[in-house]
Amino acid sequence: MNAEIIVIGNEVLSGYIVDTNSSFLSSELLKLGIEVIIKIVIPDRKDEILKSLQEGMRRADITILTGGLGPTHDDITKKSVSSFLKRRLVLNENILLKVKEYFRKKGIDMPQVNTSQALIPQGATVLNNPVGTAPGLLFEEEDGIIILLPGVPAEMKAIFNKSVRPYLEKKNRGNFILTQTIHTTGISESALFERLKDIETAETIAFLPFFTGVDIRVTTEAATLEDARDKLLKITDSLIDRVDDFYYGSDDETLERIIGILLSMRRKTLSVAESCTAGLFMKRITDVPGSSNYFRGGVVSYSNDSKIKILNVKVKDIKQKGAVSSEVAKAMVNGVKKLLDSDYGVSITGIAGPTGETENKPIGLVYIAIANREKTYSKVYHFTGTRDIIREQAVQAALDLLRRRLLGI
Amino acid sequence: MNAEIIVIGNEVLSGYIVDTNSSFLSSELLKLGIEVIIKIVIPDRKDEILKSLQEGMRRADITILTGGLGPTHDDITKKSVSSFLKRRLVLNENILLKVKEYFRKKGIDMPQVNTSQALIPQGATVLNNPVGTAPGLLFEEEDGIIILLPGVPAEMKAIFNKSVRPYLEKKNRGNFILTQTIHTTGISESALFERLKDIETAETIAFLPFFTGVDIRVTTEAATLEDARDKLLKITDSLIDRVDDFYYGSDDETLERIIGILLSMRRKTLSVAESCTAGLFMKRITDVPGSSNYFRGGVVSYSNDSKIKILNVKVKDIKQKGAVSSEVAKAMVNGVKKLLDSDYGVSITGIAGPTGETENKPIGLVYIAIANREKTYSKVYHFTGTRDIIREQAVQAALDLLRRRLLGI
Repeated sequence: MNAEIIVIGNEVLSGYIVDTNSSFLSSELLKLGIEVIIKIVIPDRKDEILKSLQEGMRRADITILTGGLGPTHDDITKKSVSSFLKRRLVLNENILLKVKEYFRKKGIDMPQVNTSQALIPQGATVLNNPVGTAPGLLFEEEDGIIILLPGVPAEMKAIFNKSVRPYLEKKNRGNFILTQTIHTTGISESALFERLKDIETAETIAFLPFFTGVDIRVTTEAATLEDARDKLLKITDSLIDRVDDFYYGSDDETLERIIGILLSMRRKTLSVAESCTAGLFMKRITDVPGSSNYFRGGVVSYSNDSKIKILNVKVKDIKQKGAVSSEVAKAMVNGVKKLLDSDYGVSITGIAGPTGETENKPIGLVYIAIANREKTYSKVYHFTGTRDIIREQAVQAALDLLRRRLLGI
Repeated sequence: MNAEIIVIGNEVLSGYIVDTNSSFLSSELLKLGIEVIIKIVIPDRKDEILKSLQEGMRRADITILTGGLGPTHDDITKKSVSSFLKRRLVLNENILLKVKEYFRKKGIDMPQVNTSQALIPQGATVLNNPVGTAPGLLFEEEDGIIILLPGVPAEMKAIFNKSVRPYLEKKNRGNFILTQTIHTTGISESALFERLKDIETAETIAFLPFFTGVDIRVTTEAATLEDARDKLLKITDSLIDRVDDFYYGSDDETLERIIGILLSMRRKTLSVAESCTAGLFMKRITDVPGSSNYFRGGVVSYSNDSKIKILNVKVKDIKQKGAVSSEVAKAMVNGVKKLLDSDYGVSITGIAGPTGETENKPIGLVYIAIANREKTYSKVYHFTGTRDIIREQAVQAALDLLRRRLLGI
């Protein structure tokens, strides 16, 4: 089976909102073995919706429309679809009750305009919305399936997970397509390619370079789910084997999650001192729920004064070596580790730009230091890019250095 | 004039990469008075590119293709376009020199495959790529303009800014369309609507609600740039007047930039103590280049221990009132302000979830304290949403509270 996605909305078309719904849908559909053959973004206009629906029904088995299911006047998806299918809009009492209940719980009167959300085209299957008022709709027509989902990402996802996925799982009788993404960091795309080039496989392998590392995406297809899984496992195993220590996780595994698992398992604690990254490293560490079990806290020592006063960095070191130096990075990490009595410490000091460079210290120069109870060491990095990119890269490198320290590699 | 955007790439279609290029292009084109009428995402396949090009040329004045200009085998945009226009691909010596020079500077030999980047269809105008090897291409045909841009966002933007915008500025002779986005925070969409509903205007006004505030986007159109500017200024002035102190900036103005300007102007300094947001506030503050002039640093006191040891919070307060309390928020801000001897201090303590709630303290409860040399006060907030959303909302609220303190409102 294949699918077409039609994103409806002036705000997406005009570039004000970046569409993330269609990426979610594509990924989820692919897991079910359903390939998205085309995506279209069109305005909130009936003629455009009708035209796209017609084309969608012609070229795809499933046509999914997102957006334009809200109660306001510019949300005309439902009306257009009912006109396309030549069905009357009828009031659905169940939906009306749910919309009323939604507003009652919020303690506000239901605006009259919301009544329209209970109007649905005859013959539609209603897909309940667990997090909002606009339900999804599904039509099984002779020449294909039409699915309407709201544009608000949380509502779209909730309806997809609750109703659309189970429906399509039963419906789809084609091949199973599985993907796995292998995350690497600290190695360039070309060096990675060199390592892997003689692996022979019939599976699809794509290299995706980012500023913070290169992903390898593997896609396999088979008639049964089991076969697809076997094939995927076989190829990813051999890839990960070659990537070796530059591999840190697959799919939704992140460096901070891996670090969290390693610290938790060993009952070890962490503290952090950041200069140029100013909190971004600690933000990443605490993105993980439950990180308070191992993360003690840290210091953003953005001024020399703060390095001296809180972290006990020596004035002499800053004067002689500079705030961006191996010596200061080491003093920072030892300062924060002692202050918070943690098992591990990480510090980052560097020049993120656009100003602050000196003759010997260019923008992008970053020192990262790691300490445990026995040993302190630092590593120097030269990053390139904008202020944002340099800060992202520095944090990624520091997370990777900590991962390697925890694994003893 | 109007335009169609064709995004080419299996990785975008499969949902692996979220397309941000087309949003950038739509926004920039709109500023030039060029409306994007449709966006399409298609695979790296010649037949699909040919079909879309044909449709694009039929319905739009300008057809812009992004993606598929790299040297690898799956990048077939250029070949497809030359076949569409029935032009031969010829070697362009200038481009070849530039590609060679690019690799020479990087200190690596040019891979043979990169020669293909110097092949261009006859009659194309070459748009130099200041940041990569794949140049953009432009064709002025009888039935419209075709523009090819690379898919890497930094390269696409660089070529657009350097060559495409100046070209289109000269070319476009239609109406001028201008937009301005008015940012608000701390007020709900419906309350905002209530304030503005009796403003009568012919201009287009859209409300865009986010978790961290509501944007109001105003669009005006006129035959001359001056008229469009006048109309825009008139309506935005009256809107901002009504929004009053919930307005904090327009277009690319952020809370952290406004705060930076206010602190710089007054030669005042800032320090920060974060608990649940764990560095995200300081990350936002230091997103502003030059923030080292007023930001002294701060503490992420993620554990009770760190609150006590570094910030001098009293054990008694934590025991009796809890780490998430007005008392502890105030003690945190006074602790960090004293430690770093700053003029202003901000502290945030709360429960971001998904765990950590108690009978009296639900997930989403956040205390924010602000201090200057004279006074310390705190405010309590009740946020809803996921861990991420609660943290984002808490940081936004703290930035707004600091802005209000600095403005004395």
